[in-house]
Amino acid sequence: MMSKSRPPIKGSNMIIGRNPVEEALESDLELDKVFLQVGTRGEFEKLIRKACQKKNIPLVVVPKEKLNSFFRGNHQGVIAVASLITYQKLEDILPQAYEHSNHPLFILLDGITDVRNFGAIARSAEAFGAHAMVIAKKGGTLITEDAIKASAGALLRLPVCREQSMSQAVEYLQDSGVSIYCADLSASEPLDQVDFNMPVAIVMGAEGRGVNPDLLNQIKQRFIIPQIGQTESLNVSVATGIILYEISRQRQLSNTQ
Amino acid sequence: MMSKSRPPIKGSNMIIGRNPVEEALESDLELDKVFLQVGTRGEFEKLIRKACQKKNIPLVVVPKEKLNSFFRGNHQGVIAVASLITYQKLEDILPQAYEHSNHPLFILLDGITDVRNFGAIARSAEAFGAHAMVIAKKGGTLITEDAIKASAGALLRLPVCREQSMSQAVEYLQDSGVSIYCADLSASEPLDQVDFNMPVAIVMGAEGRGVNPDLLNQIKQRFIIPQIGQTESLNVSVATGIILYEISRQRQLSNTQ
Repeated sequence: MMSKSRPPIKGSNMIIGRNPVEEALESDLELDKVFLQVGTRGEFEKLIRKACQKKNIPLVVVPKEKLNSFFRGNHQGVIAVASLITYQKLEDILPQAYEHSNHPLFILLDGITDVRNFGAIARSAEAFGAHAMVIAKKGGTLITEDAIKASAGALLRLPVCREQSMSQAVEYLQDSGVSIYCADLSASEPLDQVDFNMPVAIVMGAEGRGVNPDLLNQIKQRFIIPQIGQTESLNVSVATGIILYEISRQRQLSNTQ
Repeated sequence: MMSKSRPPIKGSNMIIGRNPVEEALESDLELDKVFLQVGTRGEFEKLIRKACQKKNIPLVVVPKEKLNSFFRGNHQGVIAVASLITYQKLEDILPQAYEHSNHPLFILLDGITDVRNFGAIARSAEAFGAHAMVIAKKGGTLITEDAIKASAGALLRLPVCREQSMSQAVEYLQDSGVSIYCADLSASEPLDQVDFNMPVAIVMGAEGRGVNPDLLNQIKQRFIIPQIGQTESLNVSVATGIILYEISRQRQLSNTQ
């Protein structure tokens, strides 16, 4: 909601034109996304597609006008966006989390596109000791300067894993002994009745459409944040903050008992 | 944070020019604010000042350029902003809250200027059954269309009281048997150890500067939202959501015991 019509990227982290993007793809530089002009064919298109696939970088085919809106010059039909953070791998983070804690905690974001919500969620996740935030290659927000600002810098400290798909990430976590939960307005179990003293991952869906139905099918454990008023749901960053608080509260209680 | 440089008001609720503003001030129409051009003198200035004072409407003296940025035409040095909501009086709401509940709950916002945070707080406040949100005449945000949108409409249902000053509102609530609390990073009592099964008002300060020091002196009861990470604080709308959740959780627990 409230999205402004300004470009999702800023000049400072754009790589513009065929040679620069090709070199960036060959280098160790982390890229958030590559925008390729619709209709691009031939060797260059194949090379870009292959390199993006290999390095797990989202490739988005867009009309020329979109590229023009990012850069008013000769972009040669391709613009890459350098990452402002270094992505981690869930398979590296999970063993580390188990080493540091009996109860790893992950926040999985399914299609959160609003940078301010994204940033505020990262801020809460870091504050309440989550081990990582997990996003999918497709469908989420770019980690822009605005997202980092909204996170009060937490995005520079909290590991962010960008996985091939959220469904695969959920499966991997389930297979590794992590209980997957999501908030659901039709669930009957209240949040504070769930026992979070175990390895846990929480899946949060985008405002409005919620968690993707296919993904939702994979998640058997649901809870509701009990509410009194007529407002149907909470802002997604507020809801995530409340869930993180409740998990943290329960774990601290069990530590002092 | 992230404030855009666009005008805080939109065309649809502006009243422009000397006669229209004078008539609006004489009518029952609720006004959020009156912007008066610096240097305005004489009968008109006196009339406007008196009417605003009488009706508790913030009068802001601004340079001509500010008014020009709101309206590119002959505004005659004065623009009023019609309220999108009907403000309530705390002295009316408090007895109603006591009639409906043993434990009235109020959220007092001290200088929250970001419309999205303001809206998200209203959304949580309504969802968790707060009886009203209290703002001061000076220093807060205008309740714009964007604020109402961010509140998912909750601002149209939740009573909002606009008081002469936050300090007076706190004093009035204290005298009426309401316990005033605020979150404080240097407090020692964790949020979940506070007993909220009583009439309660929570004061939330603006991001960055927090609660005004003079106001803070009036509030003896503090708590901390326990955090683990390095992030110093939470987003203000997230923090308010967590506090409302904790209050609601305790009250529901005590209802079922």
